[in-house]
Amino acid sequence: MTMASERDDIAGDMAGLAAAARRAARALAGATTEAKNAALAAMAANIRQAAAGIAEANARDVALATTQGRSAAHIDRLALDPERIEAMATGLETIAALPDPVGAVMAQWTRPNGLEISRVRVPIGTIAIIYESRPNVTADAGALCMKSGNAAILRGGSDSFQSSALIVECLRHGLKQAGLDEDAIQMVPTSDRRAVGLLLEGLGGGIDLIVPRGGKSLVARVQAEARVPVFAHLEGICHVYVDGDADLAMARDIVVNSKMRRTGVCGAAETLLVDRAGSDRALRPLIAALIAAGCEVRGDGEVCAAEPRVKPASEDDWAREYLDAVIAVRVVDGVAGAIDHIARYGSQHTEAIVTANAATARRFLDEVDSAIVLHNASTQFADGGEFGFGAEIGIATGKLHARGPVGLEQLTTFKYQVRGCGQVRA
Amino acid sequence: MTMASERDDIAGDMAGLAAAARRAARALAGATTEAKNAALAAMAANIRQAAAGIAEANARDVALATTQGRSAAHIDRLALDPERIEAMATGLETIAALPDPVGAVMAQWTRPNGLEISRVRVPIGTIAIIYESRPNVTADAGALCMKSGNAAILRGGSDSFQSSALIVECLRHGLKQAGLDEDAIQMVPTSDRRAVGLLLEGLGGGIDLIVPRGGKSLVARVQAEARVPVFAHLEGICHVYVDGDADLAMARDIVVNSKMRRTGVCGAAETLLVDRAGSDRALRPLIAALIAAGCEVRGDGEVCAAEPRVKPASEDDWAREYLDAVIAVRVVDGVAGAIDHIARYGSQHTEAIVTANAATARRFLDEVDSAIVLHNASTQFADGGEFGFGAEIGIATGKLHARGPVGLEQLTTFKYQVRGCGQVRA
Repeated sequence: MTMASERDDIAGDMAGLAAAARRAARALAGATTEAKNAALAAMAANIRQAAAGIAEANARDVALATTQGRSAAHIDRLALDPERIEAMATGLETIAALPDPVGAVMAQWTRPNGLEISRVRVPIGTIAIIYESRPNVTADAGALCMKSGNAAILRGGSDSFQSSALIVECLRHGLKQAGLDEDAIQMVPTSDRRAVGLLLEGLGGGIDLIVPRGGKSLVARVQAEARVPVFAHLEGICHVYVDGDADLAMARDIVVNSKMRRTGVCGAAETLLVDRAGSDRALRPLIAALIAAGCEVRGDGEVCAAEPRVKPASEDDWAREYLDAVIAVRVVDGVAGAIDHIARYGSQHTEAIVTANAATARRFLDEVDSAIVLHNASTQFADGGEFGFGAEIGIATGKLHARGPVGLEQLTTFKYQVRGCGQVRA
Repeated sequence: MTMASERDDIAGDMAGLAAAARRAARALAGATTEAKNAALAAMAANIRQAAAGIAEANARDVALATTQGRSAAHIDRLALDPERIEAMATGLETIAALPDPVGAVMAQWTRPNGLEISRVRVPIGTIAIIYESRPNVTADAGALCMKSGNAAILRGGSDSFQSSALIVECLRHGLKQAGLDEDAIQMVPTSDRRAVGLLLEGLGGGIDLIVPRGGKSLVARVQAEARVPVFAHLEGICHVYVDGDADLAMARDIVVNSKMRRTGVCGAAETLLVDRAGSDRALRPLIAALIAAGCEVRGDGEVCAAEPRVKPASEDDWAREYLDAVIAVRVVDGVAGAIDHIARYGSQHTEAIVTANAATARRFLDEVDSAIVLHNASTQFADGGEFGFGAEIGIATGKLHARGPVGLEQLTTFKYQVRGCGQVRA
C-alpha cells in the first residue's frame, strides 16, 4: 500500500466519522432530557461493570508507555486505579443530575407588529476533543458534549488508546441502551497523527468546535493550526495584587492559597504584585508565608532587598507559568501599576485583588481584561465546579462565546425562533 | 525604495494602528455612556457641517470609478447624495439613542461559600471592518463599534477612499470633542491590498474580531484566510416552506414578500418548498403570484408540470443565492422533506414555514438548524432593526457568540467579576 492511498484511507475514515457525527447530532438535538440522562446512567453502570477490563487495558497502556520511557508524571496521568474508574462513573452521574441547557429560552420579546421572537439554546453540533494521556477525559468530555446535545469526536493520546477504546465502548453502549444514536460519541480509530491535522482543518465543515485538553504544546498547536473555533487557554499566568488597603492576614491566606493549594492547575497564581504603599508592612510577611509553605520566591530589586531568601527575578519571570512551587513578586505603584503590569504580562485568565477599599476593588474588577477577576478571594476558585456549573470541559481565555469555565451551557449556541400570524415586511 | 522595505513600512504602519487601537480600547472600555453619546452627537453634527466637502470628495471617487469602468450598481453603492449623507448623520443619532450594553450584569449568583459571581458585559477589544464601495459603512460601523466600547480599524474599498477619509475625520473629531481618544476609530491609511492580508492575520494579537461587509467574494476570502474570529454570512439561501396545512392567502403574501420585497438582501427567499400534500391546491396560485410580481420561476418536474411558464431547475439551482427576481421551487414530502432539503442545501441563515398546524410549526422551528427560523412570517424580517436591535453591523451564520443579526450587544463579550471576603479554596 502506498503512502498516498494510506492518506486517502485516513481522510476517508475521518470524513466517515464526521458524517456519522452530523447525523447523530441532528437526532440528539431533539432528544429528551430523560433519554440523555438514561444514557448517562447506563454509561456509568457499563463502566462499573467493565472496571476489571478497563484496568487490564490500562495496564497494557501503562506497560507500553513505561517501555517507551515516559516520565513518572506522564504515567501517573495515564494510570487508572479502581478509585479513578469509579470516579469516572460518578462523574457521569453528576452530569446526568445537571440541568439540561438545550431548549432553554434565553430571552423573549414581542415586536410592535406582533412578531414573537425567542432566543433559544440549541447544541453547537459536532465537537472534537483532542487530549493527551488522561483516559478519564474520554468519559468526561464525551458525556458533557452528549448532555449538551452535541456529537463528540474524541481523539485521545496514542498512549491511552486501549483504555480509551474500552471506555468509549461503555459510552456508546449506554447511548444504544437509551435508544440514542451511538455515533453521538465516536473515537478516532487510529493513533496516526495525521488524523489530528484533519480534525484541525475541520473535516470540510464537519467540525463546529475543537476543545484541546492537555499541555501547552498541544494547545499551542491547536490554536495555531485550527481552522474552526477553539475553546482553550494556552496558559494561566494568574496574578494576585495586594493593595495598600488590604487586610494583611486575609492577604496572606489568599496569596498562599492562590499559589500553593495546587501548583499545577491553571488557576494557580504565578505572580504576586504588592502595592508600594504599605509594602514595608506587607512584603516581608507575605514572602515569609510563601517560603514557609515551601514556595521559591523570585523578586525585583525591592523584594530582594526586603528578604535575603528571595532570588532575583529576570524579565522572563513576569511572563512565566511555573505550574510549580515558584512565584515572582514585584512591587507596583498602586492599582494602576498592577493593572498595567497585568495588561503587559498576563494571559487574560484569572486575577485577584486583595483590598478593603471598595473603589479600588471596583477599578481593578472593571479595568483588568481577564476572563475572571476576583476581589478578596483566591485565584484557585477559577473552576467550573466552584462557579456552580457542576462540571466543566475546561477554561477558555478567548473572548468570544465562552470565556472562563466552560460548562454545559457554554457548549450550546442559540437560534432565534420567530412566531407570526402572516406578517410581511413593508 | 525596494519592495521589501515597502512591505516593512506597511507592516509597521499596521502594527502602529493596532497599538493605538489597543490603547484607545482600554480607555474606551471605561468611558461613560454620556461621553460616548456626546461623541456620537458631535460626529453627526460634524458630518452635517462637512456635507458639502464629503459630497465633493465623493464626486472625485465616483469620477475615478467611472473612468475605471465600474458597473452602474457599483457606482450606485459608492455614490453619496445629500439624502445619504443626512442618513449617515441620523444613523449616528439612532445609535446614540440605543441602550449602552457595556457594564450590564447578564447574570449574578451567590455560591454557598459566600462568593458573589457576576457575569458582566464588556467590550470585545479591537474590531477590524473590511468593506467595499459603500462609504456610509464607515460611519455606521465605526459608531456601532465605539458605542459598544470597541476600537475600530476601518478598511474600506479603495474606490471610496476619499469619501471615507473625510467621514473618518468627522468621527475622530467627534471623539476628541467628547474628550475620548480619537484612535478609537482609525482608518487604514493606504489602499495597498497587502494591508488586508495583515488584518486577516490579526496583527499579532492586535485584532480581536473581523467583520467583512460586502459581496460574497470578499466574505469568502475573509472566512478562508482570517486567523481571528469573523462575524459574517457567506450567503443567505433562505427557504420558505408552505405546508399542506397552510392558509393559502397567507402563504401567497409571505412567499411573494419573502422573495420580491427586496431581492438583493441576504434575507430574501431563494427557494420555495411546497408540501406534496396540498400541492395541487397551492402550487399554481403561488407560482402565479410570483410570476405576476415579476419573478422568474424555476422548478422540479412536478412544478414544471403544474405551470407551463416555469423553467426546469437544475441541481445547481437548489444551492443558488440569486439575489435577483428568480426563485427555485420544489415539491417535498411534508415538513420532514422540507427539513431534509434545507439541511442539504441551506446556508443556516433564515427559513420560514407557513402552516396553521402548531405541532408542524414547532417541529420546523426546532429541527431546522438556522440562525433564524420563522413561523407564518416573511424571511425579510431577518434584520437587526426588525428584531428591535436598533441597528446592526450585519448578520452572522457562524454558530459561536453571534448568530443572526449582530447589534451592539453582540459586539460585546463578558467577564466574571467575583466578590469575596477572604475565601480560599479547600
